[in-house]
Amino acid sequence: MTTDFGHKGPFTAVMRGVILSRNPDAKIIDLAHDIPPQWPPEAGFWIRRAYSYFPAGSIHLGIVDPGVGTERDILLAESDGHVFIAPDNGLLASLLDHADDANVWRLEMDRLSSLSLPPPSATFHGRDIFAPVAAELAAGRLSLSAIGKPVNEWTPAWLDEPDERANKVTGSIVTIDAFGNLISNIDASMIEDFRQPIANIAGHAIEMLTTYGRAKPGSLLALINSFGVIEIAKAEGSAADGLGSERGAPLIISDGASA
Amino acid sequence: MTTDFGHKGPFTAVMRGVILSRNPDAKIIDLAHDIPPQWPPEAGFWIRRAYSYFPAGSIHLGIVDPGVGTERDILLAESDGHVFIAPDNGLLASLLDHADDANVWRLEMDRLSSLSLPPPSATFHGRDIFAPVAAELAAGRLSLSAIGKPVNEWTPAWLDEPDERANKVTGSIVTIDAFGNLISNIDASMIEDFRQPIANIAGHAIEMLTTYGRAKPGSLLALINSFGVIEIAKAEGSAADGLGSERGAPLIISDGASA
Amino acid sequence: MTTDFGHKGPFTAVMRGVILSRNPDAKIIDLAHDIPPQWPPEAGFWIRRAYSYFPAGSIHLGIVDPGVGTERDILLAESDGHVFIAPDNGLLASLLDHADDANVWRLEMDRLSSLSLPPPSATFHGRDIFAPVAAELAAGRLSLSAIGKPVNEWTPAWLDEPDERANKVTGSIVTIDAFGNLISNIDASMIEDFRQPIANIAGHAIEMLTTYGRAKPGSLLALINSFGVIEIAKAEGSAADGLGSERGAPLIISDGASA
Repeated sequence: MTTDFGHKGPFTAVMRGVILSRNPDAKIIDLAHDIPPQWPPEAGFWIRRAYSYFPAGSIHLGIVDPGVGTERDILLAESDGHVFIAPDNGLLASLLDHADDANVWRLEMDRLSSLSLPPPSATFHGRDIFAPVAAELAAGRLSLSAIGKPVNEWTPAWLDEPDERANKVTGSIVTIDAFGNLISNIDASMIEDFRQPIANIAGHAIEMLTTYGRAKPGSLLALINSFGVIEIAKAEGSAADGLGSERGAPLIISDGASA
Repeated sequence: MTTDFGHKGPFTAVMRGVILSRNPDAKIIDLAHDIPPQWPPEAGFWIRRAYSYFPAGSIHLGIVDPGVGTERDILLAESDGHVFIAPDNGLLASLLDHADDANVWRLEMDRLSSLSLPPPSATFHGRDIFAPVAAELAAGRLSLSAIGKPVNEWTPAWLDEPDERANKVTGSIVTIDAFGNLISNIDASMIEDFRQPIANIAGHAIEMLTTYGRAKPGSLLALINSFGVIEIAKAEGSAADGLGSERGAPLIISDGASA
Repeated sequence: MTTDFGHKGPFTAVMRGVILSRNPDAKIIDLAHDIPPQWPPEAGFWIRRAYSYFPAGSIHLGIVDPGVGTERDILLAESDGHVFIAPDNGLLASLLDHADDANVWRLEMDRLSSLSLPPPSATFHGRDIFAPVAAELAAGRLSLSAIGKPVNEWTPAWLDEPDERANKVTGSIVTIDAFGNLISNIDASMIEDFRQPIANIAGHAIEMLTTYGRAKPGSLLALINSFGVIEIAKAEGSAADGLGSERGAPLIISDGASA
């Protein structure tokens, strides 16, 4: 489960209750609940970067849903042996756009009659639709093709994919972790031919290092993080506090050797 | 488990450890741990509003316990196929006052000798009493009637029930969620006959809508939330920040059509 | 799992995913993830004080790891029927120094070939090394002696043990809980012969009481907390806010009866 529900209150807990009521053997993991309210790109980013660490057959729910209660669709997707379910608001676009083998459906609410769902609330489809559907899928009592209509298009991503040029890649900060590290959407593979990569952000040109431990305390560094993307960190400090950069801020990696 | 222990430190974790030590098959769900310190009404509110989303037979622990270490009682209750355990400080009063079928007992500590409990600490009965009792109940090795003495009275609720008049219901804000939505104790059923319900709070008269998505960004709205109570929200913002209202603040729903 | 990863983002979740991918029956408990960034003493403190509440055979991961990606060792230890794994940076020193029966090994990375680990990232050994090793140990497919080299020395603890004199014990504040209580490393046993123990901190001399409930609202008190150490609290308030004391601050317990 990846949501913007935060850790306060009973919201993710009642989703667990609904899932376990239908499927007592389900194992439920919180991927992240601190997605900024109503900002789908970060939920999609983490699901795309993290899903492969979970067992094959896992069902990934991404619920950042500004349109809940309006006529937005819900997407069901299968890719790389995993299942993904999210509102059709761009959340899954980055993942689906890069998948080689994705099958995608639009959930058809009228095919859920076997679930005896109560009428969904206007504001909490996580509990009323996503949770019971996931529980039944995990139990093998539903199939994606039975409840969805195949689609080939979806709402595009909110953040542009990085712009890749010969000696320069321009991307964006997608999220900021608990340490204040700024995490971008620039994949390591995009700069693998750069001989001397330099990260440019908020007026700073920052050298790329291979580990936090090699920088002097207080200095900024850029590195390829554990999820395979470029990250801006401050040794023993918070890069976010130091640079004042927010989600969406541009990050440019240039090849110093080409100048 | 619903507590005011917060998410820092090992407090709820050691409760899990104690439960699993006695009952390795127990499934343990955190309903909420961000109840304001030593304020039982919010714990009771969420348990009352959320319990039905959990499997029948669930045991709900509510541990907001300003009197821990003093001579306060612990209540055990069975209602609607669920079990509830909490200090007798008003936490469960709202739930029990509205239950048709509740059986309530007062825990008798001297009937727990079969559990070989270590002497309880003065400050952490969650770990030393609530967790082992819940583990043994869930394992079917204890019964409520064996460890409790039946009672018909309990400490009253800290917040008054809403005052219901013909065209006006006066209730209170019980909790504020992670989005800054103000959640009240006024049940939807109390205003179902109102033709044009208006929410009055902190000098504002607010129209009731059916979904967040139908309000203009930045405007206040009132709606029946996913737990069946009236909630004050701000579209794409925080109602709590805007109104400055706290837990306990009065909320009045009047019927504009009756004026 | 005890870490400084916080509750934001997917870090502890992907560790769960990795563990469950290798060992679907594993039960995983978060002891604490709010350890101050890169401060191992608090992680070691909670593991030492909390481990016995978990089932025998539990594996305790302590991952506060300023040296991740550098040439630091990883310790494996077995004591009192529990297993402990952490970077060799002092995190486990307090626990191991006080254990009567500890067996300790240094993890030999080249003995993990049967695990088919991907090359570890420079920054997230929790996911890449600790999680898979814990999963395989819990599954009984690895043994500590097979993957470690016995050692008798480890990096010392960052905080001194309390200095014990006849009528005076000098220790330190190790952590601050969600209520603002200041928790020290002074064990109750160190002052059990004191007839009139007085806690001295930040210029205040504070009487020791046996429970929160016996102090006047707003007054400071010292008590032996539920983990058996001296704690400074403020009745219905935050001692940390009132005293301005931080982790590491000195706390002296003197025997008033000896003056």
